[in-house]
Amino acid sequence: MQNKILKFEGGAAIVSAASVVGKYEYEGPLGDCFDLHDSTDKFGMKTWEKAESEMQRLAFNTALAKAAASEREVDVLFAGDLLNQCVGSSYGLLDFDIPYFGLYGACSTAAEGLMLAAMMTSAGYFTTAAAVTSSHYCSAERQYRTPLEYGAQRSPTAQWTVTGSGAFLVRRSGRVRITEALPGIVVEKGINDASNMGAAMAPAAADTLLRYFRYSDYKPEEFDLIVTGDLGFEGGSILCELLLAEGLDIRSRYNDCGMMIYDRKKQDMHSGGSGCGCSAVVLASHLYPRLERGELRQILLLGTGAMMSPASIQQGQAIPAVAHLLRIGNEAYVERG
Amino acid sequence: MQNKILKFEGGAAIVSAASVVGKYEYEGPLGDCFDLHDSTDKFGMKTWEKAESEMQRLAFNTALAKAAASEREVDVLFAGDLLNQCVGSSYGLLDFDIPYFGLYGACSTAAEGLMLAAMMTSAGYFTTAAAVTSSHYCSAERQYRTPLEYGAQRSPTAQWTVTGSGAFLVRRSGRVRITEALPGIVVEKGINDASNMGAAMAPAAADTLLRYFRYSDYKPEEFDLIVTGDLGFEGGSILCELLLAEGLDIRSRYNDCGMMIYDRKKQDMHSGGSGCGCSAVVLASHLYPRLERGELRQILLLGTGAMMSPASIQQGQAIPAVAHLLRIGNEAYVERG
Repeated sequence: MQNKILKFEGGAAIVSAASVVGKYEYEGPLGDCFDLHDSTDKFGMKTWEKAESEMQRLAFNTALAKAAASEREVDVLFAGDLLNQCVGSSYGLLDFDIPYFGLYGACSTAAEGLMLAAMMTSAGYFTTAAAVTSSHYCSAERQYRTPLEYGAQRSPTAQWTVTGSGAFLVRRSGRVRITEALPGIVVEKGINDASNMGAAMAPAAADTLLRYFRYSDYKPEEFDLIVTGDLGFEGGSILCELLLAEGLDIRSRYNDCGMMIYDRKKQDMHSGGSGCGCSAVVLASHLYPRLERGELRQILLLGTGAMMSPASIQQGQAIPAVAHLLRIGNEAYVERG
Repeated sequence: MQNKILKFEGGAAIVSAASVVGKYEYEGPLGDCFDLHDSTDKFGMKTWEKAESEMQRLAFNTALAKAAASEREVDVLFAGDLLNQCVGSSYGLLDFDIPYFGLYGACSTAAEGLMLAAMMTSAGYFTTAAAVTSSHYCSAERQYRTPLEYGAQRSPTAQWTVTGSGAFLVRRSGRVRITEALPGIVVEKGINDASNMGAAMAPAAADTLLRYFRYSDYKPEEFDLIVTGDLGFEGGSILCELLLAEGLDIRSRYNDCGMMIYDRKKQDMHSGGSGCGCSAVVLASHLYPRLERGELRQILLLGTGAMMSPASIQQGQAIPAVAHLLRIGNEAYVERG
């Protein structure tokens, strides 16, 4: 049943979304949409790692405040980040006495967390579930590539890890419904360039989308937007080409959170944004409010993740990737469940 | 609802379990119970990281073979390991075209995966779910502490990361039932010594156990065994002390997978075994068969995990930990669901 599209008969909806970002994200085209930002990227902390944790704490607190919910009403946290052993999440959410499931889906963690939250609330295990993710440019560069002080020149296909955290609350009913999900399969097509994550992730996104449209009753035209998490300009164009070769044309309604978050002309971000925070903050700040108002009736969101380890890159291994798909729509336009 | 004990009304059972280990695990007291071992710890691979992935592949294949199941019958994989970005799992399970949820619960990942697998199969999302985890002494030392070549002296409280992988298949019915689960809350009590993980994890295990016995109808005497994942001798004795101070005495039926896997007198493993593989291989090789035969009627298994990152340790931060609880029993002795 590799192609089973999951449906949420009990209902699943995002009822609150919050975003916290750094300097460049705030200066980008979506700047006004974010809830909180700090132009120092430090959020009052002494290290980049602690700053990332603080973003998660702020994002989750803001999501709670927007829903007028207390910590006690949240039954479970699904959280993850890019740092070694997901310490961004475990430190950031330590203040909250809420059962915690740690996730690792690389940049696709936001979609993975929302998918698990939707499954659990729909099945009745929990009343309110939260999905929280983050990434930070400075902590990610230190861990994956070179410390910032090294001043390495970035290649044109390189992406810029988004400094940001997104938090979501999921319940059974609400205006922005999660109606279907299709978990991704790990795909690896030989890309071993850590500065070209888009190319590594595009085949995984293509695999999930092709499986979705093969087994779904929907056609691409029925979505206002088909949006990937962080393929960037390089990966996004590869995805469209891969799909075209299979007879699927999504170009007229395709976009990518990594392309949307920075201004390509004014900001020197090369191939676009990436990281756990990328799709999380674009969904929370820009897509979710538009879905809530009905400006977007129904979208497909694909969280894309490249499982890249410094050790495996040094050992010359290619980069495996995964893409988790969610169908999300305004309740006025989608069937229940 | 921080204290909601999850029940599986649709049913959840482990129907197959397999274990793959390295040299020291094979030479330990449970040596004869493991399905596969390689005394070189390399499993035919050139790097420790690839060896770890190969163990996952072998463990999952063996679990499939024991259930006479094909890859196509498995609907979803819940997998994780200790390596940077869980590459042990993503490479190890790359061969299989099965939807993949990456997890990060440190050494508690086996329990986290089994818990999610039980929830999903009981709720009817999937017919067969797999939970797979691994750890490897050599890849873990390289990532978390010092490369082996450095020859660092280990402190008495240090634990030995188990070289091993465990794989489980979960369906709605079977002889070894998962009847309840209580997800852990992240706890941090100020331990910042990376060579004393047991002390960091014991308070998390105590927190989960105290919550369980406060809200459950069961008493410790009703379990043949209350077993933690990898507290080791140091952490295990701290757990018993913490619980005694709260009026809960589990000592007569308490054990720890990290204490069981090595011979403390003959093998120089200091405080015992640890890592994602520890509870996974002890459950798969030793506890599961005894539950299947009814020699153990009902047990509580606590997966214990310390979310330790080299960067956060260098920055002097304390180590947060989590403990996920599962109640597992032979179908002849436990109620359904």
